[in-house]
Amino acid sequence: MEDIQDNIQFQLSNELIEKVEILVEDKNDKELKLLLNEYHYADIAEILDELDVEDSVYVIKLLDSGLTSDILMELDEDNREDILKHLSAKEIAEEVEELDTDDAADIIAELPENRQAEVISQIEDEEHRDEITELLTYDDDTAGSLMAKELVKVYETWTVAGCLRRIRGQAKEVKRVHSIYVVDKKEKLIGRLSLKDLIVAKSDQKISEISNSNVDYVNVNEDVEDVAKIMAKYDLEAIPVVNENQTLLGRITIDDIVDVLKEEAEKDYQLAAGITQDVEADDSVWELTKARLPWLVLGLFGGLGSVFIMKGFENVMQTVPSLFFYTPLIAAMAGNVGVQSSAIIVQGIANDNVKGSIGNRLLKEIGLSLINGLALAFLVILFGFIIKQDLTESIAIAVSMMSVIVVAALVGTFVPIILDKRGIDPAIATGPFITTSNDILGIYLFFVLSGLIIGF
Amino acid sequence: MEDIQDNIQFQLSNELIEKVEILVEDKNDKELKLLLNEYHYADIAEILDELDVEDSVYVIKLLDSGLTSDILMELDEDNREDILKHLSAKEIAEEVEELDTDDAADIIAELPENRQAEVISQIEDEEHRDEITELLTYDDDTAGSLMAKELVKVYETWTVAGCLRRIRGQAKEVKRVHSIYVVDKKEKLIGRLSLKDLIVAKSDQKISEISNSNVDYVNVNEDVEDVAKIMAKYDLEAIPVVNENQTLLGRITIDDIVDVLKEEAEKDYQLAAGITQDVEADDSVWELTKARLPWLVLGLFGGLGSVFIMKGFENVMQTVPSLFFYTPLIAAMAGNVGVQSSAIIVQGIANDNVKGSIGNRLLKEIGLSLINGLALAFLVILFGFIIKQDLTESIAIAVSMMSVIVVAALVGTFVPIILDKRGIDPAIATGPFITTSNDILGIYLFFVLSGLIIGF
Repeated sequence: MEDIQDNIQFQLSNELIEKVEILVEDKNDKELKLLLNEYHYADIAEILDELDVEDSVYVIKLLDSGLTSDILMELDEDNREDILKHLSAKEIAEEVEELDTDDAADIIAELPENRQAEVISQIEDEEHRDEITELLTYDDDTAGSLMAKELVKVYETWTVAGCLRRIRGQAKEVKRVHSIYVVDKKEKLIGRLSLKDLIVAKSDQKISEISNSNVDYVNVNEDVEDVAKIMAKYDLEAIPVVNENQTLLGRITIDDIVDVLKEEAEKDYQLAAGITQDVEADDSVWELTKARLPWLVLGLFGGLGSVFIMKGFENVMQTVPSLFFYTPLIAAMAGNVGVQSSAIIVQGIANDNVKGSIGNRLLKEIGLSLINGLALAFLVILFGFIIKQDLTESIAIAVSMMSVIVVAALVGTFVPIILDKRGIDPAIATGPFITTSNDILGIYLFFVLSGLIIGF
Repeated sequence: MEDIQDNIQFQLSNELIEKVEILVEDKNDKELKLLLNEYHYADIAEILDELDVEDSVYVIKLLDSGLTSDILMELDEDNREDILKHLSAKEIAEEVEELDTDDAADIIAELPENRQAEVISQIEDEEHRDEITELLTYDDDTAGSLMAKELVKVYETWTVAGCLRRIRGQAKEVKRVHSIYVVDKKEKLIGRLSLKDLIVAKSDQKISEISNSNVDYVNVNEDVEDVAKIMAKYDLEAIPVVNENQTLLGRITIDDIVDVLKEEAEKDYQLAAGITQDVEADDSVWELTKARLPWLVLGLFGGLGSVFIMKGFENVMQTVPSLFFYTPLIAAMAGNVGVQSSAIIVQGIANDNVKGSIGNRLLKEIGLSLINGLALAFLVILFGFIIKQDLTESIAIAVSMMSVIVVAALVGTFVPIILDKRGIDPAIATGPFITTSNDILGIYLFFVLSGLIIGF
């Protein structure tokens, strides 16, 4: 099947990058075009992500703007920013002309404010310019910031034949026709139909006869994550966006949602690992330090807090020195239990399946941590037996560890719930935040309770 | 806009659940149907997830199988399993008849083996039965296990008019027509076109004239995660699946990929938090214990290892007792740094952006951890100064902490890389696994290095 271009098998190689670099250096435009036109724009973006910014700019200026606009969208954000710095407002406007309104607005929003107006004024197509300007007014993380103005819209009074004729025009501008939206004469969304419905229908039928009034939609101010949840839950591939008056404003497609879900998952994962969002393995040492050091400093303060607490129990060292050997274990257990509890709650909140009353959740979490704690306490006593530790000491350590586990589970469960209730992203509660507070609390509890049992 | 059914605003309430329970108890079928038919199948599934299994079975048997088959697909896996146990093979077969082949195969695959054959033999539509049987032969986590047999296929020799006529028949079976796949007379995939292309074309044109030979596809044995990566990267909403001979076998749609991405993200997140995959906040205490306790036992063994190491340095307690106060801090730093490094590498591996040689990565990681370590060491010395700690001790603690941080970063970076090279999911390396090994290693290093500096 040599005639099928198989761009799935694309593997970025050092040879390919070098080949491109040499062609750029030689200014061998003909060969460069021949070579790159073989690849999908997403693959060319991967190549450019590896080049110096000057070389990337050279390639962008060389290739057709129909292709380069798509390449720009696929680049790493940092690299795109650098490349756009080297392009004139006119050149950026030309790229923007080729893009759908949602992507166009995203690119312009990334520019410094003074350049934004400059680029917008250079967009020749007036309708495109107005639509982009409208999209730029919506807040980040709202449906409005994600939607595109490109859609296929028909009036309820049209016939199937008339409709087919007119949507031929509209459809040319729209890459993928998921649904055709039906509006009344006031532009209010009143239904939808699919291209398939249109093809299957008789040509003299009215749109109102064949359209489906059961149409899902979201408000333009709806939170992006909620839009993603709705589209995933109802298996929607596109959803229309309306304002308070039900006027059809745009549509959001599933590929944008895939990006939202991926970013969301990566952000939560990084927060849980104690990394400020949005760094990658290949970022600079400086960027990685900025993302990691603050969390480590937080952990350090926690650790220094423990030093302080233990200094307070320094006299116990003479009588029960082994307690001090167990402090890393106590801290680890408090940390691990806290992270487990918080992760389950954070995911539950994200998936809307944290139901039932606070009281029930409290009982469940206590029950759960008591079971886990009992099993672990048994192992600690067994270990004490093996290393011939004094039994009272072993029991004191096991019992206070169990209490620490229960408290850690409660902290891990309720801190995310409280944060969520206050409108703060509960994901920041997993990871170093919970670990650090549970470490200090755990070690303090451990010494106090052991003291009560052993008697010091 | 009262005539638009707004199922987006659905909020599961206790009142609604109770209402359904009462109607079931009263066997008030008419009211129950009236009530439930107002909701989207995904919403009804949410309601059933809260009912007893007997009540759910009652509702499933009551409603139309066209609706209940979709409800079944949206239920929690555990609840679906319970409900299916209460249905006869014949009843399950009726549900399966209504489903697309991919969903049908998924449901059947969940049944115990002896029931599988029974259900399959009860499927009346022979073609549907054969297609489902074929899908059941593909391994989990391959493109074959995710694809559906439903697709719209045309031969290159057809005309646009003939094609439109014939796909009217095929399209009725296919919920969403993303692409029309063009095959030659041997059923080999040679191109694609969209419904839009077909509508825009002249009716006497040949398919071969208007089709696009640049068609992406995946092999039926391709890994599901790779399929997800390809579809996300190239913004595809559907991708055809072929065998080694390029014969068109089925297609995968983006909604299945959304599910794969979500599951993958949740699995990684849970592994990083030390939870065996696939538990939810609302699972039973026993299930949650099974998912959590093994990881805690791992952590406990790590902690007991630290006890052992510190016992070996017991005599140091007389001379430099403060070293023992710092052990939770050392363990926390080793753990946090290890988790950060591993999380970045695990995400980098998942996104294919861990490039460059091992040597460069080594240097970068050492550089990064030295910068972080220096900053933290400075804070430790400052803290020592404030609490009037002996300067040599402070320096010993700071320097050995710095070494621990470098080693922890290297372990966190290279363990996932090594696991990945051996074909093991690197995500298991984040979380308790890295934390525990770094704790032990860190505390050992800390005492040895401090000993060298202070001299004990």
